[in-house]
Amino acid sequence: MFLTRSEYDRGVNTFSPEGRLFQVEYAIEAIKLGSTAIGICTSEGVVLAVEKRITSPLMEPTTIEKIVEVDRHIACAVSGLMADSRTLVERARVECQNHWFVYNERMSVESCAQAVSNLAIQFGDSDDDSGTAMSRPFGVAVMFAGIDEKGPQLFHMDPSGTFVQYDAKAIGSGSEGAQQSLKEVYHKSMTLKEAIKSALTILKQVMEEKLSANNVEVVTMTPGELFHMFTREQLAEVIQDIP
Amino acid sequence: MFLTRSEYDRGVNTFSPEGRLFQVEYAIEAIKLGSTAIGICTSEGVVLAVEKRITSPLMEPTTIEKIVEVDRHIACAVSGLMADSRTLVERARVECQNHWFVYNERMSVESCAQAVSNLAIQFGDSDDDSGTAMSRPFGVAVMFAGIDEKGPQLFHMDPSGTFVQYDAKAIGSGSEGAQQSLKEVYHKSMTLKEAIKSALTILKQVMEEKLSANNVEVVTMTPGELFHMFTREQLAEVIQDIP
Amino acid sequence: MFLTRSEYDRGVNTFSPEGRLFQVEYAIEAIKLGSTAIGICTSEGVVLAVEKRITSPLMEPTTIEKIVEVDRHIACAVSGLMADSRTLVERARVECQNHWFVYNERMSVESCAQAVSNLAIQFGDSDDDSGTAMSRPFGVAVMFAGIDEKGPQLFHMDPSGTFVQYDAKAIGSGSEGAQQSLKEVYHKSMTLKEAIKSALTILKQVMEEKLSANNVEVVTMTPGELFHMFTREQLAEVIQDIP
Amino acid sequence: MFLTRSEYDRGVNTFSPEGRLFQVEYAIEAIKLGSTAIGICTSEGVVLAVEKRITSPLMEPTTIEKIVEVDRHIACAVSGLMADSRTLVERARVECQNHWFVYNERMSVESCAQAVSNLAIQFGDSDDDSGTAMSRPFGVAVMFAGIDEKGPQLFHMDPSGTFVQYDAKAIGSGSEGAQQSLKEVYHKSMTLKEAIKSALTILKQVMEEKLSANNVEVVTMTPGELFHMFTREQLAEVIQDIP
Amino acid sequence: MFLTRSEYDRGVNTFSPEGRLFQVEYAIEAIKLGSTAIGICTSEGVVLAVEKRITSPLMEPTTIEKIVEVDRHIACAVSGLMADSRTLVERARVECQNHWFVYNERMSVESCAQAVSNLAIQFGDSDDDSGTAMSRPFGVAVMFAGIDEKGPQLFHMDPSGTFVQYDAKAIGSGSEGAQQSLKEVYHKSMTLKEAIKSALTILKQVMEEKLSANNVEVVTMTPGELFHMFTREQLAEVIQDIP
Amino acid sequence: MFLTRSEYDRGVNTFSPEGRLFQVEYAIEAIKLGSTAIGICTSEGVVLAVEKRITSPLMEPTTIEKIVEVDRHIACAVSGLMADSRTLVERARVECQNHWFVYNERMSVESCAQAVSNLAIQFGDSDDDSGTAMSRPFGVAVMFAGIDEKGPQLFHMDPSGTFVQYDAKAIGSGSEGAQQSLKEVYHKSMTLKEAIKSALTILKQVMEEKLSANNVEVVTMTPGELFHMFTREQLAEVIQDIP
Amino acid sequence: MFLTRSEYDRGVNTFSPEGRLFQVEYAIEAIKLGSTAIGICTSEGVVLAVEKRITSPLMEPTTIEKIVEVDRHIACAVSGLMADSRTLVERARVECQNHWFVYNERMSVESCAQAVSNLAIQFGDSDDDSGTAMSRPFGVAVMFAGIDEKGPQLFHMDPSGTFVQYDAKAIGSGSEGAQQSLKEVYHKSMTLKEAIKSALTILKQVMEEKLSANNVEVVTMTPGELFHMFTREQLAEVIQDIP
Repeated sequence: MFLTRSEYDRGVNTFSPEGRLFQVEYAIEAIKLGSTAIGICTSEGVVLAVEKRITSPLMEPTTIEKIVEVDRHIACAVSGLMADSRTLVERARVECQNHWFVYNERMSVESCAQAVSNLAIQFGDSDDDSGTAMSRPFGVAVMFAGIDEKGPQLFHMDPSGTFVQYDAKAIGSGSEGAQQSLKEVYHKSMTLKEAIKSALTILKQVMEEKLSANNVEVVTMTPGELFHMFTREQLAEVIQDIP
Repeated sequence: MFLTRSEYDRGVNTFSPEGRLFQVEYAIEAIKLGSTAIGICTSEGVVLAVEKRITSPLMEPTTIEKIVEVDRHIACAVSGLMADSRTLVERARVECQNHWFVYNERMSVESCAQAVSNLAIQFGDSDDDSGTAMSRPFGVAVMFAGIDEKGPQLFHMDPSGTFVQYDAKAIGSGSEGAQQSLKEVYHKSMTLKEAIKSALTILKQVMEEKLSANNVEVVTMTPGELFHMFTREQLAEVIQDIP
Repeated sequence: MFLTRSEYDRGVNTFSPEGRLFQVEYAIEAIKLGSTAIGICTSEGVVLAVEKRITSPLMEPTTIEKIVEVDRHIACAVSGLMADSRTLVERARVECQNHWFVYNERMSVESCAQAVSNLAIQFGDSDDDSGTAMSRPFGVAVMFAGIDEKGPQLFHMDPSGTFVQYDAKAIGSGSEGAQQSLKEVYHKSMTLKEAIKSALTILKQVMEEKLSANNVEVVTMTPGELFHMFTREQLAEVIQDIP
Repeated sequence: MFLTRSEYDRGVNTFSPEGRLFQVEYAIEAIKLGSTAIGICTSEGVVLAVEKRITSPLMEPTTIEKIVEVDRHIACAVSGLMADSRTLVERARVECQNHWFVYNERMSVESCAQAVSNLAIQFGDSDDDSGTAMSRPFGVAVMFAGIDEKGPQLFHMDPSGTFVQYDAKAIGSGSEGAQQSLKEVYHKSMTLKEAIKSALTILKQVMEEKLSANNVEVVTMTPGELFHMFTREQLAEVIQDIP
Repeated sequence: MFLTRSEYDRGVNTFSPEGRLFQVEYAIEAIKLGSTAIGICTSEGVVLAVEKRITSPLMEPTTIEKIVEVDRHIACAVSGLMADSRTLVERARVECQNHWFVYNERMSVESCAQAVSNLAIQFGDSDDDSGTAMSRPFGVAVMFAGIDEKGPQLFHMDPSGTFVQYDAKAIGSGSEGAQQSLKEVYHKSMTLKEAIKSALTILKQVMEEKLSANNVEVVTMTPGELFHMFTREQLAEVIQDIP
Repeated sequence: MFLTRSEYDRGVNTFSPEGRLFQVEYAIEAIKLGSTAIGICTSEGVVLAVEKRITSPLMEPTTIEKIVEVDRHIACAVSGLMADSRTLVERARVECQNHWFVYNERMSVESCAQAVSNLAIQFGDSDDDSGTAMSRPFGVAVMFAGIDEKGPQLFHMDPSGTFVQYDAKAIGSGSEGAQQSLKEVYHKSMTLKEAIKSALTILKQVMEEKLSANNVEVVTMTPGELFHMFTREQLAEVIQDIP
Repeated sequence: MFLTRSEYDRGVNTFSPEGRLFQVEYAIEAIKLGSTAIGICTSEGVVLAVEKRITSPLMEPTTIEKIVEVDRHIACAVSGLMADSRTLVERARVECQNHWFVYNERMSVESCAQAVSNLAIQFGDSDDDSGTAMSRPFGVAVMFAGIDEKGPQLFHMDPSGTFVQYDAKAIGSGSEGAQQSLKEVYHKSMTLKEAIKSALTILKQVMEEKLSANNVEVVTMTPGELFHMFTREQLAEVIQDIP
């Protein structure tokens, strides 16, 4: 079964006899090797919590960025190939700036996800003029957390370019267990504080390393403050409360 | 038999010894993995009903779009690879706008299907200037529902670019059973209301999940209102009546 | 024997050790999968009769076009890949219009076939500027029926680009039996009416479905009326007489 | 032995370990599948006689052209792939016209053969600007018969682009036997009439079908009349005399 | 297991079924064949110490450069393919000069690492205009040591383009053992002098050749003197003290 | 051993594990299939003698050219693929004309060989602007015979582009035996007449056909007459004297 | 082991699982097939001595150039593929001329080696504008001998583009034994005369043919005379003294 596949998927963008595009499926596998990220959307705001993999005590953890600010009102958490994620984040930033410049309003979170999706589906052997042609799908999953006219919102996009709005979503190596836990704990009336605690509790369960202020990154998007990255002290305080 | 095929279909656009283009056949397989969509054309109007696959209760169903407005008088229901469908829908929209701009009249549904078909058959290794060259066929089936001078009309296009007018048509994973049911229930004097009920009844039979207002999308095209997407409430009301 | 072939024909435009171009031969196979078409040339005019494959009773047969008007005095019946045939027909139309515009006279049927043949033989990996480069031969056979200064004429072109004038010719899946029958019934003094009846009689014999006014298309080219597509009523009337 | 070859000849223009270019050899095989053509050069003029393959009695033999006029003083008989031959003949015509236009004199038969040879050897993957790049050798053999300042002349060119002057030459499927017969009957003092009769006699021996005025084409090039294609009546008359 | 890999990694930039990019992993192997380099960052400055492989006593050791000055305030130590490292160093230099020219300030060490990383991830088959497209990942690891507004800093970048700040890092063939030793000896209050001694002590342990002033290169980056390459005499003096 | 080679030499311009370029070696094999050519350089002038392969008595031997005039003072004898040789000879002619035009002096024989060698080594997949890019080495060996300021000279160039001056050299299928014989008969004080006789005597020994005025071409390059091609009569006379 | 390699090295510029670039290693093998060259650098000057392979007594040895003058003060001795070496030497010459023209000073020997190295590492599938793109590494090793401001200098560059200064170096088929001998005889206070004698003595030991004034080329670079190629007489004289 396994060998049979290999005869079809060499062409990056070719159908297998069953009508599948294997490279897209393999790219989705790449994300299962990535660090776990969790996003929860509440009426008060969105929280993103991501595992940092500290492979050596001599590493400086602050230089590992898993959550980035795309625009003042949109943050992205990524999992998978870091090099690929940078290209997608760069596109998100350009689109947001462009939208602001052209329409004098903040881009909606959905439009931002759509714009990044448009780039994600352009892999293959077409030589377009956008300078972004990839010979393979992007090996990265992205969570967009933002605040726009519809309030706090969370979107998820996978390597096939499919993006869907979620109340709560987990990606990366621990995503399977984490998604199950999210389903159990999530309810519509959750406060942001509860969401932060839930995200870190679940992250703790699925991470191989012991959770600490060093190996986790937490960002909240709220209507008031917009992008807020937790400091080491704030993280320590929250982690203290986790069972 | 299976292995023998593989020796010919590596070239995306090459004949097998039996005179077949396997990539086109594989693309048709891709649609059999897609969500089921049903279209019925009556003298009062056309109805499109599509299954939405809700893989998690935390997903926000409204962000999954399976039926889109191409122009004020034409809607498309798609099944297969979502990324591919977007390219085809975009082309349909541009062609409709262009037709309106150049001829000051709405494009006929058939011409719109023809225009999308022209794009669908351009896969292969030609590098034309249209910026739409694909290295493989589009893995998507499209139903065009619209109202033009000839009244309500329903067209179906498969990955080979073949498009044919239908009274009623089903595509996607449940299409085989659904098409059989359509054949049985369809008659020329059907009212639109009957058509809506039939479409949902059949969809209910072929869907794996239990049919609900959450996991189905229904659009009607009528001479009066043109594009009308059913709200959650309207869907709930119709579903209530289904045996 | 079969496997040995496969080692040579991967290059679309490469000779096998026996000096054959397999892709052309495979394209000819593609036509054997197509719907049957019959053409008969008499001194009164030419008749083209083509089978339509109605795979579902919900299909609208009139949208399946197998015979098209190329110019006022030339019609084409095609069999094989519909997408490919459209490219060839488009070229025929452009050439006819161009001829009319430049020389102020109708293009002869032979010149029209020649022009289409020129396009058909251009497959391969050359990148010319005509925007028509194909990576494989066209998988379509064409019959040109027309009226020019030499009177009624019928030409046949296969995927290799070879075109020859015929008194009567059959193409498509039933062509072998049909061509045999044509040889038996054809005589130089046939009237057009006899030709129509013979064409339909033979089509009836080779078609899998039962012949009806729904699943056949008949066109006559006569010096007087030029292109004439039979209506449903006219078809029903003729079919009635067939034994 | 056979399989070993296949490992080298996939590259169209690559040497085998024995220093051979297999695609050229395979192209030469393509000619062995072609219809037989015979040319004989006498002091009075040159005769070309070619077999026409009539595969159906409903075919119109006059539309199968195996001998064409290149210029008023040069004719070409071809055997092999008809599509390829057209490209070569077109080049011959352009070169002759050009020569006439630039130098105000008829191109010599040798120069014409040289010009076509230059095109024939340009196959491979070079992308030159002449728009004639082929990915494989031309699968056609050409006999040039003409009258220039040196009198009647006959040249032969094979797919490798090699061209040599001959007194008498046969190409195509029956060429082996025919060339042997030509060697026996040819003598320097042959009259044109004897040459015509010899050509047809030999053709009759090697053709599978029975020789008739329908399935043979004969052209003579003489200083007086230049290009002369035999009519059906003239052919019938000559054939009558053949034992 | 090993063979199975080989079926996927031929495409330089293609996912394996497990979602991995093998060429990047193989490039990381290339560095394990390179000479060992050690970097230690203290509050007083950064030290880089690299092994030189002297394969012949007739070699002139000074022409083997493993540590280069990128800008007045940034040095790079490289391990892996020397040819590749030159391209990356060239880019680092250009970016630093450009930053100075445009912003009239020294580029931060992190920005410099980021700029080189941007180049490192551009391998694949995209043809961009930067003239730096590589068909494979760069087979080189780089340590950036520099002094900027945040004080002394050490960054490490691997072939995947991932860059992380480190307190102390070892790369190359002896990196595994060296990194372990660094973990044991490093402490935040280390003086630069201690760091130099530690670096050479560890290098001595992992080098196959006996450590001497001839086969090692040492550079310090300090706020006062910036780039300082140790002379033979200075090296001899330090080595003398190593147990 | 043989099969192992085949795994490396498919890339036209790729090293085998032993550091060899097989396509160049295969091209050298191509010459061993060519007709034998012999060149002898004396103080009085250079003689070139080449075998003509007359495969049919109906061939006109004068149209087979194996020795060509490049410039008034340089002749080339070639063996191998005739089509390839024409490209090289064309380049030689252009370079000679150009040299004459620019410097107002005859190009030296060595410079002419150098210019052709520059072309011969340009095979591979580079797309330069000279329009002469070959995807494989030229399958031809060339002997340059000429008279320049240094007197009579003979150069030999093989498919690798290596060119060396020789006193006497043989190429083609009989070259091995011929070169041995040349070594035995050649001496520095040879007269041109002796050289002609030796060349033909050796050619006679290695040719399969019986040597005659019909199947051999002889050219002498002398300071007085420069290029002189022997007539049939002159050849007959010389051949008469050969034992 | 051997076969496993072959699965990775087909891509000219792709890593093997062990992180190696096989084509570069195979190119290094190509040099082991080349003629032996020896270079010795003394305080009085540099000597280069190269073996010439005389495969036939009819060859003119003076036309085989293994040592060339790059600029007045730099000479190159090459071993490996002659065609490749010419490209590298050409680049060296252009760079030297350019340096002289732009800076009005002689290029240093190291800069010259650096410039050639920059070209050597550019192989692969990048299409840059320099017109020097190679699809494989250059199969040539180069020794640069020159006199610049730092006095006499000897550099060696291998196919990977790595260049290092040497006191004495041997390349080519006999390099292994020769390098060993050089290590034994070389001392810092060697005179140029001793160096010449040593170079020829060692060359004599490793050459298959008997050393003579015919099959060796010797060049000295001295501050006074710069490039000096030994005449036959000078060579004979030196060889006489060799034991």
